[in-house]
Amino acid sequence: VRLPPPALAPDAAAELRGVLGADALRDDHRERVLHAAGKGYPDLVAIRAGHPQSAPDAVAYPEGAAQLRAVLEICSQRRVAVVPFGGGTSVVGGVAPLRGDQEAVITVDLRRLAEPLALDRESLTVTCGAGLRVAALEARLAAGGLTLGHFPQSFEYVSVGGCAATRSAGQASTGYGRFDERVLGVRCTAPAGELTLAPVPASAAGPDLRELLVGSEGALGVLTEVALRVSPAPRARIYEGVFFETFAGGIAALRALAQDDATPTVVRLSDEQETSMSLALAGAGGVKGAAGRVYLRARGYAEGCLLVLGFEGEPERIAARRRLALALVGRHGGLAVGRTPGRAWAAGRFAGPYLRDDLLTQGVMVETLETATQWSLLTSLYRAVGRAIAAALRERGTPGRVMCHVSHLYETGASLYFTFLAPQQEGREIEQWSAVKQAASAAIVANGGTITHHHAVGVDHRPWLADEIGAEGVELLRDLKQRLDPAGIMNPGKLLPDRDGA
Amino acid sequence: VRLPPPALAPDAAAELRGVLGADALRDDHRERVLHAAGKGYPDLVAIRAGHPQSAPDAVAYPEGAAQLRAVLEICSQRRVAVVPFGGGTSVVGGVAPLRGDQEAVITVDLRRLAEPLALDRESLTVTCGAGLRVAALEARLAAGGLTLGHFPQSFEYVSVGGCAATRSAGQASTGYGRFDERVLGVRCTAPAGELTLAPVPASAAGPDLRELLVGSEGALGVLTEVALRVSPAPRARIYEGVFFETFAGGIAALRALAQDDATPTVVRLSDEQETSMSLALAGAGGVKGAAGRVYLRARGYAEGCLLVLGFEGEPERIAARRRLALALVGRHGGLAVGRTPGRAWAAGRFAGPYLRDDLLTQGVMVETLETATQWSLLTSLYRAVGRAIAAALRERGTPGRVMCHVSHLYETGASLYFTFLAPQQEGREIEQWSAVKQAASAAIVANGGTITHHHAVGVDHRPWLADEIGAEGVELLRDLKQRLDPAGIMNPGKLLPDRDGA
Repeated sequence: VRLPPPALAPDAAAELRGVLGADALRDDHRERVLHAAGKGYPDLVAIRAGHPQSAPDAVAYPEGAAQLRAVLEICSQRRVAVVPFGGGTSVVGGVAPLRGDQEAVITVDLRRLAEPLALDRESLTVTCGAGLRVAALEARLAAGGLTLGHFPQSFEYVSVGGCAATRSAGQASTGYGRFDERVLGVRCTAPAGELTLAPVPASAAGPDLRELLVGSEGALGVLTEVALRVSPAPRARIYEGVFFETFAGGIAALRALAQDDATPTVVRLSDEQETSMSLALAGAGGVKGAAGRVYLRARGYAEGCLLVLGFEGEPERIAARRRLALALVGRHGGLAVGRTPGRAWAAGRFAGPYLRDDLLTQGVMVETLETATQWSLLTSLYRAVGRAIAAALRERGTPGRVMCHVSHLYETGASLYFTFLAPQQEGREIEQWSAVKQAASAAIVANGGTITHHHAVGVDHRPWLADEIGAEGVELLRDLKQRLDPAGIMNPGKLLPDRDGA
Repeated sequence: VRLPPPALAPDAAAELRGVLGADALRDDHRERVLHAAGKGYPDLVAIRAGHPQSAPDAVAYPEGAAQLRAVLEICSQRRVAVVPFGGGTSVVGGVAPLRGDQEAVITVDLRRLAEPLALDRESLTVTCGAGLRVAALEARLAAGGLTLGHFPQSFEYVSVGGCAATRSAGQASTGYGRFDERVLGVRCTAPAGELTLAPVPASAAGPDLRELLVGSEGALGVLTEVALRVSPAPRARIYEGVFFETFAGGIAALRALAQDDATPTVVRLSDEQETSMSLALAGAGGVKGAAGRVYLRARGYAEGCLLVLGFEGEPERIAARRRLALALVGRHGGLAVGRTPGRAWAAGRFAGPYLRDDLLTQGVMVETLETATQWSLLTSLYRAVGRAIAAALRERGTPGRVMCHVSHLYETGASLYFTFLAPQQEGREIEQWSAVKQAASAAIVANGGTITHHHAVGVDHRPWLADEIGAEGVELLRDLKQRLDPAGIMNPGKLLPDRDGA
């Protein structure tokens, strides 16, 4: 991997080292490469080619909020862009080391911002430093019989602050709630000052500023501390497989679950394409062996859709919920096929990104994108986006396979998560990816979907933010940024579209 | 009731009439008096004395968002303050016709902003004009087997927009969720432009601007349209009474309900003072007759605390929830006393404000205030606020009675709702009220409570907003207001504290 020489001015570096200590500002090759990109498709393509799109001029490791404040002050004065970095798993360019109109760019790795860790067992809240890994927090909570219930595919790496800053949702968020629904309090250090919002269960004291900081993607300031709601750890888990003849039939069943207070903890309904891919992958996600498939075909479910339902909690309570849910999905034509598919899914739940790496090595483009909308628009959105992706791939001469699943239920709607595979256009991988992304995003906004349900805006979704919140909404965010970050150093090129709409 | 002559300049009035039509800008005595105040204690005292603290110079009735935009434009140019008015039931001065530094003030009554009314049965959402009465919407929904589940004490009058702008919570909000949790989309007309946030079930597209408009109390713009989540109407209701020896014991039981997923739809735990007052009021809220009281005393509950639990939904489902809840509260020392107390409470649930009027006529001050905090702080907050109110009343030579109940449960905490009664200090009623309000509010912020759980900020809670969201948070809101309302006409004197902290 080749990098340009670090461009941080020697006096800026010296000032930063004065604040951080000599060891906590690094500009060696290894540190710069490790912080050069996130985990989006363009990131992987560039890193594999040995040409990251950019790299930070240095990486800072502040130890507490006071050091961080000093770093932001120096960077504001010295015109150095700051990229906050938690787990580094953004798939939308959220940690790309872009300098915008600044003279240099540093990545601020927040892993040393992991204190305090204060658990209030009576209120079921925990306060922790934003750099703490979710997996580490989950392990600490598990020791006390508690859980955060937050399991994104990137679970092994993500930080608490990163999940808050990007409105993360995980595989069990239908049951435990999205990460943003668990944030009760937050502390944010911005170049212009510090915002502290104490954890209260609910308030009518005006606009909720928490909801401005949550989802702010490092563009307004750095989240330094987060107070979260935790839950009793489940004492039992049951995963069930159910087959539907059609995706639309499965969606109707999911709507009944969500609207009749029978929501499971985990839900994943795959469309025909994703289901047949799962069944084809030996041993993974399928109904057990050839016999199972014969059974399904005999029942008329040869081209069916697999639904995995997971129930977590107290044994008697989840038994009751399971009965209720299975009765409901049965009434909607669902055929229960036992626990094998659920177990297979649970065993491979964090494996997706690794599989993607393997396929990439074989010249196969694998990318995912996601949205959400109301139930009444869900099927038309599904069709429109699927068609748009397929058409864009065909137009590039690389027809591919498009799959989708529903994995997050709300009373008023649900998410759609698309995966697509196609042969890479060698040497034009980014152009190919970009064409598909454009087509899919245009279909999403034209059909009533949100541009992102849980991946965040980052670099990739900026062109569609105005479709989501309007031009006036974008201007409002710009004003907020101007107040909190007058020098414009915070994560430039993310969240907010450029003035020319790019 | 005497009012100063209307101060709206004739040319401004003519311009407004040109937009609205001659009939839709009123400055007759009756209209001005009807819009002179809300329903706070200071409002009632002033109106009863025949001297409202202020009155609008005129009342406008725009028929749609286009007329409203034109009104705001004229008012921005002509330096006329605008007070948005829904049901007029604010108890914190939210509709007080203050002109701030403008030259006149008009109240904009939004009752004609009641269209469109679009129901999406599949998604369980309804979109309606912000001026629509919640009671009217509830009636329309009930006809289709649906409910909004929103029943504040002011249910008969409140508008959809008013509930959204003030983060209202109602008597069944523990079950159905706060009003702000039901707002999916919102349209806001501000002097500087219009914000439209479409209803999506969830999104990760940056900061959530909905949460800036919800709770904005007319100080940023006028909410003109709201999209709400609705629910299937309950087919059955059960209300149960339970006695606890102590308030702290009852609180422990409520915490168990909230944290063990056994939350009822309605909950109201009265402290010893409120319980004995309820029992003393003939036939209302008590255990049936003298025999019941003897029964309680025999079981050691003579000075007990009454808990009303309400369960609403499908008959079999609520039967199961009821069993679970009664078992849990039983384990915490609760003694079930049957359905009479619950029925009595349900029968009188909207009567409080009328009772207050009667007592006022007899020279008795009756006021309420409310807060919320985490479970671990709830009992100390309860004691501190109760003591502060009692001491402030004593210090004025008017010792009184202070009562409290818990009525909204969250996994991490709960609300506290205080009612206090004392002889009025004749001729110094406002001063007396203000002294108690100051003392209570200081105790709230010093003990980790929010300054308001569901009454909103209005005029009365402004001095404590910086305690809630910090000085930097207040400055952020000022910037937002500056952008959306550059001339400063929107509801001056509400929500945001004056620069000098008053």
